[in-house]
Amino acid sequence: MEYTLSKIATNDGHGENSAFFDGWKAYDSDPYHPTKNPNGVIQMGLAENQLSFDLVQEWVKKNPKASICTNEGVDDFKEIAIFQDYHGLPEFRNAVARFMERVRGNRVRFDPNRIVMSGGATGAQETLAFCLADSGDALLVPTPYYPGNDRDLTWRTGIQLLPVVCESSTGFKITREALETAYKKAQDSNIKVKGLLLNNPSNPLGTTIDKQTLTESLTFTNEKQIHLICDEIYSATVFDQPGFTSIAEIFEENPKSYNPNLIHIVYSLSKDLGFPGFRVGIIYSYNDTVTNCARKMSSFGLVSTQTQHLIASMLSDDEFVDRFIPESAKRLAKRHEILTRGLAQVGIGSLKSNAGLFCWMDLRRLLKEATFEAEAELWRMIIEDVKINVSPGAPFHCSEPGWFRVCFANMDDEAVRVAINRIHEFVMIVQTKKQRYIRRGKLEVSLSFRRLDEIMMGSMKMSSPHSPMSSPLVRAMT
Amino acid sequence: MEYTLSKIATNDGHGENSAFFDGWKAYDSDPYHPTKNPNGVIQMGLAENQLSFDLVQEWVKKNPKASICTNEGVDDFKEIAIFQDYHGLPEFRNAVARFMERVRGNRVRFDPNRIVMSGGATGAQETLAFCLADSGDALLVPTPYYPGNDRDLTWRTGIQLLPVVCESSTGFKITREALETAYKKAQDSNIKVKGLLLNNPSNPLGTTIDKQTLTESLTFTNEKQIHLICDEIYSATVFDQPGFTSIAEIFEENPKSYNPNLIHIVYSLSKDLGFPGFRVGIIYSYNDTVTNCARKMSSFGLVSTQTQHLIASMLSDDEFVDRFIPESAKRLAKRHEILTRGLAQVGIGSLKSNAGLFCWMDLRRLLKEATFEAEAELWRMIIEDVKINVSPGAPFHCSEPGWFRVCFANMDDEAVRVAINRIHEFVMIVQTKKQRYIRRGKLEVSLSFRRLDEIMMGSMKMSSPHSPMSSPLVRAMT
Repeated sequence: MEYTLSKIATNDGHGENSAFFDGWKAYDSDPYHPTKNPNGVIQMGLAENQLSFDLVQEWVKKNPKASICTNEGVDDFKEIAIFQDYHGLPEFRNAVARFMERVRGNRVRFDPNRIVMSGGATGAQETLAFCLADSGDALLVPTPYYPGNDRDLTWRTGIQLLPVVCESSTGFKITREALETAYKKAQDSNIKVKGLLLNNPSNPLGTTIDKQTLTESLTFTNEKQIHLICDEIYSATVFDQPGFTSIAEIFEENPKSYNPNLIHIVYSLSKDLGFPGFRVGIIYSYNDTVTNCARKMSSFGLVSTQTQHLIASMLSDDEFVDRFIPESAKRLAKRHEILTRGLAQVGIGSLKSNAGLFCWMDLRRLLKEATFEAEAELWRMIIEDVKINVSPGAPFHCSEPGWFRVCFANMDDEAVRVAINRIHEFVMIVQTKKQRYIRRGKLEVSLSFRRLDEIMMGSMKMSSPHSPMSSPLVRAMT
Repeated sequence: MEYTLSKIATNDGHGENSAFFDGWKAYDSDPYHPTKNPNGVIQMGLAENQLSFDLVQEWVKKNPKASICTNEGVDDFKEIAIFQDYHGLPEFRNAVARFMERVRGNRVRFDPNRIVMSGGATGAQETLAFCLADSGDALLVPTPYYPGNDRDLTWRTGIQLLPVVCESSTGFKITREALETAYKKAQDSNIKVKGLLLNNPSNPLGTTIDKQTLTESLTFTNEKQIHLICDEIYSATVFDQPGFTSIAEIFEENPKSYNPNLIHIVYSLSKDLGFPGFRVGIIYSYNDTVTNCARKMSSFGLVSTQTQHLIASMLSDDEFVDRFIPESAKRLAKRHEILTRGLAQVGIGSLKSNAGLFCWMDLRRLLKEATFEAEAELWRMIIEDVKINVSPGAPFHCSEPGWFRVCFANMDDEAVRVAINRIHEFVMIVQTKKQRYIRRGKLEVSLSFRRLDEIMMGSMKMSSPHSPMSSPLVRAMT
């Protein structure tokens, strides 16, 4: 007799083999470094926010008592290290609730007693899935959406995610029609829909959801008596108009119009503060039963009290928060401008965006043909020849091939400059190849692709960071 | 149409309503404090290790670079805060593996590449359950066992725990016969047994499992081709002979006799170092597939990198570790001696133990009758009248009524003294009541119980901490 493992352990539910995660591996095996490995892979596939750490480190130096590992704070070490109440430190809950309010312009109130901890947004999403749906049930999710959702919400819970198909022709807007279509399709397949998951601002789009769409989505879920989960983990990354509207605002403006038991918010400090290592995930539900149940489940992924203690101090400092939020947004805006302008110089457009740590780059016209196979081929070229890890749209369940997510806040200015230069060279070459492809056929192009690296090496020498090459072949797109 | 939540959210799988957790609530609403609330409830239901924090705090003061929140360490803040690789910081994995070896007298080796993080032992147990068994499958667990196992292993996974009944007549020893009986019973009920869970040292028994029993258990699981999970979270709390033997030793002594794919260890720093707030849980499996799968699942409960960084420094300091382990054991031994001697003075015995943060107190002769109802009644008296929270055997799935777990390492010497005094008074009174009960019948005793508080108030005044009362009614038990 042979021993066995579980179905979960032996199925492919984690999804680690998708191109989204594969790109990370390519980076890991050959990471770019300005001096040690200048020809290495530049990681533009990681939605990290590294632009404002100087502000954080300055604060840390000024506030030694915020840590239990300083002479000033060590007297609290024991009390903090032994604290294991799953409600969390009261000062942590208060500080997080206040911070969430400030990020939303103080237009809404959050009750600290409803703040539930989880192991990052990853844990928060899974916890809500366990609370709201049984194995086999489904949540609707507008496309494109973050590939990690599949792992977070479905792997161990057995629930399904069903796409609400959004298209580039409308700027990937979520329409009532698309929601109804997805809902009806599930009903026709006898699948019980338990909720709708929105990501606002959107990863990968980098856009905020407008007030009207939020209201329509809430009306939709309320009418169907299904749950609305709003993943707002990028709320403080909004750097341009229109500003951010939280589902909390829509609800509080007309509290009697909606069933509060159906509204749940996911939050985290991984993106807004840039602390993914600290694993601070938050569930904020207006439903008492869900709040209580999620809190019990939080035992599987509590935030370290060492970290709770630090975050409580940091986010209770109004002066720091009031400086950090706008300064971080300002820096993101600048970086976004540099990247999108750099892309536009070689005619690469991206979805107009106002938030997030990435832009949604449109390479549709560089595809040999409008298929996901061609997208994958282009992506492999970008990784292998251009040595930039961007993420193709397919793992994001995008309905159209040719879109790529490009992260811009996990590197310094110099790396961005190098990346833009590489993209410039690449586009020039692919344009030329594509023209030849159209003239001569597939086989030769395939061979040419293999020699791309050599060709690029030559042309790189000619380029200068201050005079990006332009070509009559390319034109600006939006 | 009404909205619904999941079955998990609405069933009673968390088990929070058991007497085990109820006692914590009683403490929370009226906590003892030597000056502010001297008549409050003393918490002896919490397996915390608070006896050696002076050593830790001294180390912290001497090692400011170990923290990212000091002037000496803040330059690492950014790199640590953004680190989110689920493999964990390499220095953390190395330090934990070395620490686990030292706790086991350097008799075994642990591969740092097999160290998998989880949110405490709570997360580790659930992760292993998800990896090893499907919903409906079962794990065998010798009784009595930690009540949290029901929540950790079964609540969200849907698996079952089946008792391997161990009895006081053999010192709660795990026998091959008991294992076979439990296994057969499951087979007769068509339940698929996927493994055996051992807790060594045992919570609540405070005893280590001897080498022969470990070998027999491993032989049993190996023969049945089922998994053996060894929960060794109390391994560094062993304070007396016989010492601790890890399942790793049994396996390494005869590696060819056993299938390594069936052996898994759960570890944590919550008990051995006393840092439950830091949520450091570890899975160490000899099975590659389980290691890889558990690591992917660790995304739901990673250890904060702030904490990984601190622990890496602390546990890499050989001098500190070599001082901490024996000193902590020495202090636990002393506290154990004070408590068990204090209990013996009024004739209360406890299972002979050599480890853990608790003893397994035998109050069988204080029960009105040998039922779990009588145990619950006695427990309520202890909470309400004696104002000590101890944990009755029923939530530990003990097969005999009358056993209680008493934690002794989560308080200072003075609180222990007060607790022992209260127990002395209580035993005297209950002895008297029981005699009356035997003579006169149940009704009157029930009334007397209500007046216990008043009676105690009187007798408390007469007692002195240095002259514990003795009585011809009581005699020492072991």
